[in-house]
Amino acid sequence: MSGDAVRALTFDVFGTVVDWRTSIAREGVELGRAKGIDLDWHEFADDWRALYQPAMQRVRSGEIAWCKLDDLHRMNLDELLARHGVDGLTEAELDHLNRAWHRLDPWPDAIAGLTRLKQKFTVATLSNGNVSLLVNMAKRAALPWDAVLGAETAGAYKPQPAAYLKTAEMLGCAPEQCMMVAAHNGDLAAAAALGMRTAFVLRPSEYGPEQTTDLAPQGDWDIVAADFLELADKLDC
Amino acid sequence: MSGDAVRALTFDVFGTVVDWRTSIAREGVELGRAKGIDLDWHEFADDWRALYQPAMQRVRSGEIAWCKLDDLHRMNLDELLARHGVDGLTEAELDHLNRAWHRLDPWPDAIAGLTRLKQKFTVATLSNGNVSLLVNMAKRAALPWDAVLGAETAGAYKPQPAAYLKTAEMLGCAPEQCMMVAAHNGDLAAAAALGMRTAFVLRPSEYGPEQTTDLAPQGDWDIVAADFLELADKLDC
Repeated sequence: MSGDAVRALTFDVFGTVVDWRTSIAREGVELGRAKGIDLDWHEFADDWRALYQPAMQRVRSGEIAWCKLDDLHRMNLDELLARHGVDGLTEAELDHLNRAWHRLDPWPDAIAGLTRLKQKFTVATLSNGNVSLLVNMAKRAALPWDAVLGAETAGAYKPQPAAYLKTAEMLGCAPEQCMMVAAHNGDLAAAAALGMRTAFVLRPSEYGPEQTTDLAPQGDWDIVAADFLELADKLDC
Repeated sequence: MSGDAVRALTFDVFGTVVDWRTSIAREGVELGRAKGIDLDWHEFADDWRALYQPAMQRVRSGEIAWCKLDDLHRMNLDELLARHGVDGLTEAELDHLNRAWHRLDPWPDAIAGLTRLKQKFTVATLSNGNVSLLVNMAKRAALPWDAVLGAETAGAYKPQPAAYLKTAEMLGCAPEQCMMVAAHNGDLAAAAALGMRTAFVLRPSEYGPEQTTDLAPQGDWDIVAADFLELADKLDC
């Protein structure tokens, strides 16, 4: 498809644009070396990420009030460090570690792909990350977003419909004029149910070498691409 | 001041970053030529802008429900065209004219200044313009925003406190870590009252050669600058 009717591409970020697992493990290794903490930091990254959906679910369900992702990450970090018996980190060290999510590295094709896609489309985040996290990440990694939107600007966490619909609305688009780009079938299913177009990008090592999920498209997505460069090819960018 | 404690610069857009009067008049002249409409288009631009604050006030006061600026501009445009007895424009022509606000040209120093300021600070809009208006403007004019925020993302029109406070919060900043940059003393007064830092940039021809307002700072602003390049100098960028 040429994407002629599409005006904006909205991107999932964690896993789709950036490699959170390798980046978090890298930060953990540095901290561990400096502070003498001996952990499997890839496993630590996986465990931290595993607490992500349950924490957001507490917000979605109304069990706790709106809370930006930085704060949910911190609650989860505190729980995880306690589980591993890690104490003795200062507040500044904890805060720095928590902000490792602001310092995630993009997949190798991400910047070149976004730069091409941006010539033809509005490229915006549609992430559960809060705005400052995404802005700091973009400045560090030179991600060329036209707009940084998502859960915080919509007041709703994906896959709640408002996260998608308010983002499309802010971009001045009807849902069908937006294409959701994600490495996760569930994200695309939620977007498609609201009328958005969909592009599945394969990130088969997001969860490490043993990844078992999202290794193939599980829906009738408009585009399936190996990376952002193939996505740009398929959208005639 | 060196701005050491400041992390983000938040910009008023209409008048401060872009020259709305000349740009709207330019679009009017084009339309007038094509459609045989004989108006003073600078006066038309002034009249359209004069309806801006009263329209937002209807939202601020609760008289009408939340309405993005594109929609307020359109209500005002319809009123103004009726006042001048202009009819016969198609819906597509009216919509195109209304979106002239998406196609405003920056002041000559704006892009170079923002590019320098962006190296040291997060640069974000804090505008009453809606997100799609600001994104379209930025893409057309190559304004290098890190984030496009303001009334629509805060759900409040300046000078309501929430417009400033929610924007600062989304940028991960306390108010005192944000510097409001504006060509309008009233905007800076509202920001300063909330603890934000302030930079006044002179735009003495925003309202044309006969401008009588905002020709000088009327408060104890942290910085006064002739343009964005002098602002960058004063912030050691």
